[in-house]
Amino acid sequence: VSSIVLITAMGNDYHKVSDLGEDALISRIAGRIGRAPRGELWSGDDAAVVTAPGPRLLLTTDVMTEGVDFDLAYASGHDIGWKSVAVNVSDVAAMGGRPTRAVATLALRLDVRLAFVDALVDGMLQAAERWGLSVVGGDISRASEIFVGIALVGEPGEPTVTRAGARRGDAICVTGALGGAAGGLIALRRGMAGPGPTEGHSFSRALSDALGRLAARQLRPNARLDEGRVIAAAGATAMMDVSDGLVLDLHRLLEASDAGCAVSPEAVPVDADLELLAGAVTDVELGPATLALTGGEDFELLFTIGRNRLDAAKSSLAELGCEMSVLGDVTDGARWMGERDLGEWKEAGWDHLRGR
Amino acid sequence: VSSIVLITAMGNDYHKVSDLGEDALISRIAGRIGRAPRGELWSGDDAAVVTAPGPRLLLTTDVMTEGVDFDLAYASGHDIGWKSVAVNVSDVAAMGGRPTRAVATLALRLDVRLAFVDALVDGMLQAAERWGLSVVGGDISRASEIFVGIALVGEPGEPTVTRAGARRGDAICVTGALGGAAGGLIALRRGMAGPGPTEGHSFSRALSDALGRLAARQLRPNARLDEGRVIAAAGATAMMDVSDGLVLDLHRLLEASDAGCAVSPEAVPVDADLELLAGAVTDVELGPATLALTGGEDFELLFTIGRNRLDAAKSSLAELGCEMSVLGDVTDGARWMGERDLGEWKEAGWDHLRGR
Repeated sequence: VSSIVLITAMGNDYHKVSDLGEDALISRIAGRIGRAPRGELWSGDDAAVVTAPGPRLLLTTDVMTEGVDFDLAYASGHDIGWKSVAVNVSDVAAMGGRPTRAVATLALRLDVRLAFVDALVDGMLQAAERWGLSVVGGDISRASEIFVGIALVGEPGEPTVTRAGARRGDAICVTGALGGAAGGLIALRRGMAGPGPTEGHSFSRALSDALGRLAARQLRPNARLDEGRVIAAAGATAMMDVSDGLVLDLHRLLEASDAGCAVSPEAVPVDADLELLAGAVTDVELGPATLALTGGEDFELLFTIGRNRLDAAKSSLAELGCEMSVLGDVTDGARWMGERDLGEWKEAGWDHLRGR
Repeated sequence: VSSIVLITAMGNDYHKVSDLGEDALISRIAGRIGRAPRGELWSGDDAAVVTAPGPRLLLTTDVMTEGVDFDLAYASGHDIGWKSVAVNVSDVAAMGGRPTRAVATLALRLDVRLAFVDALVDGMLQAAERWGLSVVGGDISRASEIFVGIALVGEPGEPTVTRAGARRGDAICVTGALGGAAGGLIALRRGMAGPGPTEGHSFSRALSDALGRLAARQLRPNARLDEGRVIAAAGATAMMDVSDGLVLDLHRLLEASDAGCAVSPEAVPVDADLELLAGAVTDVELGPATLALTGGEDFELLFTIGRNRLDAAKSSLAELGCEMSVLGDVTDGARWMGERDLGEWKEAGWDHLRGR
């Protein structure tokens, strides 16, 4: 894991991190990732040596880019570090697996302060601790926009649940509620929540609290790690995380399984805080139901399971404090969501919400 | 491995890749990475499932950013894809290991053509085939500059050679010759080699050939994979790849080993093509010896080994067609390169050569 020239700024002065300074920054980060257990070798060499979690590995990577996946106008370094780990853990959760080790790549802008880097590492490490994995090294480079990537190794679930196993007659289910992260993005972008000048708004306590919760769903998402393992153990036939919106991700799952569906849009669980948001913004297209169907980044788990296993899944999830909703059935026909084809709903998907 | 909104351009028209288009682009790439062997699951799900190379893993990642690590004025998509894999393989080689599986992250600019992405994937796959690993998936995002990251899993060498084992009295050695990649960067930036308007120059055939070889060292570096295993087997006590220049990387190896050195700058092997480059450019500071000492990205292997193992290492490397040079000795004193401290040489290091 060699690293490349890095220029950063400390305080208000712009200092070019010389070769020595670059190594010092790496040492600064390396000093905080903890001590490698016996038999492992973490940061400081060309590559890390880690214990394999078993005869098979899960391997995944997910990147976040400034201006696309986050904006420093509302996201802190800590938020970004946390989310970079969470989105990868969510991918592992969606296989019914368990993450064990990760490496991080950071590309930093010239004017990034050292305090930002520290907070970003804090966020990564806090998320890593939350989900029981270790960040063992990485690579630092420079760029004109911030780029945070995580690559993660994990233990596959037993059984490993892919997207491809949905069978006719299975129930289509989702954990939690949807649309909250997209709602949070709207609130943050409009300065209704987050670190921006929210003083301009005079919100009721209830609305203010709701906007704060929505913002947290966007900035510091949860990964349904324990839930993924429980769902796999209950006999799920297919699973994925909802990262790009229910409609689009359901389409992907069915495509991988070569299956159809009959799903009721009314059965889709809507984040309760979206009602208050909808009352505060006037845009018709941002209604709670639309956000729940097409909003991305909730990182809930979408899965299919035989009807005879539904109660087992529901009670196991309840023990974790996690609700689940049955959206409809897997079929071998077309893909119906209410009276419209899933493809029609897709047009209104996540891309639209990103507003680019 | 979920992916995010991607906007790309096809032909001269700017097309936004809709959600369907994004999936189609991923399918396009996925269709080319080959079929997963039995028991593995590659691109197309939340995470890949791969066979562990053994009870312990090597794990490394390295990123390349447009404008810092490459420039489209002289680097093709194929070059960039190749190099992104090569630099990671080099990290594994430096541990005496063997790469097995990789995931890639791509962040693409709005105006990147599909042909560029195809070439980049070609380059990655060609390098992966060259060194016997498989690219099993990845993540695509969008950004305002191109970003290519590889995370790689491999089998540690037996023994695994770190940077930390150099002992007093060991010989300090390096494979191949140095400075060629830095010389190539100079030639490419001045339009003396590469795809630029080299017609303006009237070079001798010998000079033109030399410039072409130097450019290739910069654009399509070799990774000393077999050499790393042979060096480890011969009993090397410490090893790393020379990515940021001999002076800086030797300093790092000695720092990790808590050791000193007595090295002769005259013993450093200089890329033979640099003499011709030096004759064609007038800048004094770009002399062959300076480039060999401080130029980065040659990806040769720097290692220490007991004097009694030197002949074994040399003859094993010779069988691979690889020369090696003995630069001097590990000591328990200061770090001497000729009559100057290594720290003084470091000031003239790689950062300077990058010209930023």
